[in-house]
Amino acid sequence: MKNEISQATIGRLPLYFRTLNFAEKDGMDIISSDEFGRRLDITPEQIRKDLASFGQFGKKGVGYYVSELKNRIGNILGLENHWNFAIVGVGHLGSALANYKNFITLGFNLVALFDTDKSVVGTTINGIKVQGIDVLKEVVAERKIQIAIITVPVSEAQNVTDLLIESEVRGIWNFSPIKLSVPKPMYIVNEDLSIGLSSLSYHLARLD
Amino acid sequence: MKNEISQATIGRLPLYFRTLNFAEKDGMDIISSDEFGRRLDITPEQIRKDLASFGQFGKKGVGYYVSELKNRIGNILGLENHWNFAIVGVGHLGSALANYKNFITLGFNLVALFDTDKSVVGTTINGIKVQGIDVLKEVVAERKIQIAIITVPVSEAQNVTDLLIESEVRGIWNFSPIKLSVPKPMYIVNEDLSIGLSSLSYHLARLD
Repeated sequence: MKNEISQATIGRLPLYFRTLNFAEKDGMDIISSDEFGRRLDITPEQIRKDLASFGQFGKKGVGYYVSELKNRIGNILGLENHWNFAIVGVGHLGSALANYKNFITLGFNLVALFDTDKSVVGTTINGIKVQGIDVLKEVVAERKIQIAIITVPVSEAQNVTDLLIESEVRGIWNFSPIKLSVPKPMYIVNEDLSIGLSSLSYHLARLD
Repeated sequence: MKNEISQATIGRLPLYFRTLNFAEKDGMDIISSDEFGRRLDITPEQIRKDLASFGQFGKKGVGYYVSELKNRIGNILGLENHWNFAIVGVGHLGSALANYKNFITLGFNLVALFDTDKSVVGTTINGIKVQGIDVLKEVVAERKIQIAIITVPVSEAQNVTDLLIESEVRGIWNFSPIKLSVPKPMYIVNEDLSIGLSSLSYHLARLD
C-alpha cells in the first residue's frame, strides 16, 4: 500500500492534516468532503480520491471523522516521530524558517541553529542560540537531530552537506539553489522557490 | 491542449526550464533524456511523458534540442511576459525572496517593495527602496506591477489582499499561513512551506 500513494497526494496530505487540525480545534467531529474542499480550494472528488487510496475514513452521506482522519494522516506522514530539526545558515531565509509557526503545528521541533558567520554565532533567534558550524557534528549527536534545513549560500552548500553526511542526520531539506545529492539511506528534498512564481505565471498567461 | 497539462507536470516545468537554461549556458545543443533525468533526479520516462504532452521536441535516439525546448517551456510558462512583481512585507522571508536569484533567471522583475513598519520604509534591499503600503495602489499602476508576493503576518494578510484587489495586480503569491481568496480574474497561489518538511517526514518514516 505504501508505494501506491502518489507524490501529488503526499503533497496534499499536510494541507489535509492542517485543515483537520483546525477543524478539530473548532470542535468539529465530522467534516463533509464539500466543506473540506471549500476550506482547501480542492474539489471534493479529489479529496475523496486521495483519501480512498489509504483506507476508509468517511461515512457515506455524513463525512469524515475529523480526529480519526487527522491522526491517520499524521501517521502516514510520520509526524508522530516529532522529528528534531536544525537550520544551517541563519540569513534571512533561515531566520524566517526558524520563526515559521506551521512546523510546530505539524509536530516538528527546532532544536539548533548553525552559522559560519562569527558575528551571528551567539545571537538568539526564536529562543535558540546560534552555534558555529564547527560544533555541528557533536550537537547533532547530542540533540538527536534527524533533519537539517540548509539555507546557506550556494558556495557553502556542498561543505555543509558533507558535514551533515558525516553526522547522524537522516534527512535534508535544501533551500540553496543547487541540486545536492546524499548517499542512501539519507533522504534529501531539494526545494525550489521559483516553482510557485512560475506556476502563477503559467496561469496568468492563460487568463488574457 | 492547454488544459491537458497536469498540475504535477506544470510543477516540473520550471525545473526543466532551469536545467535547459544551464545546459544552454554550458554550450549544449542537444540533451538526452537520460542526462536530463540525471541532472534532475527524475526518471527519463517521466520527462519523456511530460514533454510529449505538449509537442514533439526530441529526436529519437538523439535527444532534445536544448534552446528550442527551453523557449517552448518558457512560452508555456508565460515567462516571455517578464512579469513585474512586488513584495509586500520585508521581514526575513520578504527580504530573502527579494534577494532570490532564480526569479531573475526565470525573467521576473522585482520592481517594488512595501512594508507598514515605518522603521523599514526608506531602507534599501537589493537596490530597491522600501515604500509605505499607503502608496501601494499608485505604485502598482505606475510601475505596471502584475504580481505581488505577500509575506506579511497573518494579521495583516487580509488588509493587504484587499488593497491588492483594488489595485491592478493580477496575481498573488501568498506566503502568509492563511488561505486567502481573490475574485476572478485574479489568480492566487497559496504557498505552504510545511509541505517540504512533511514530505521529508513521510519518506524518513519509511526508511526505518
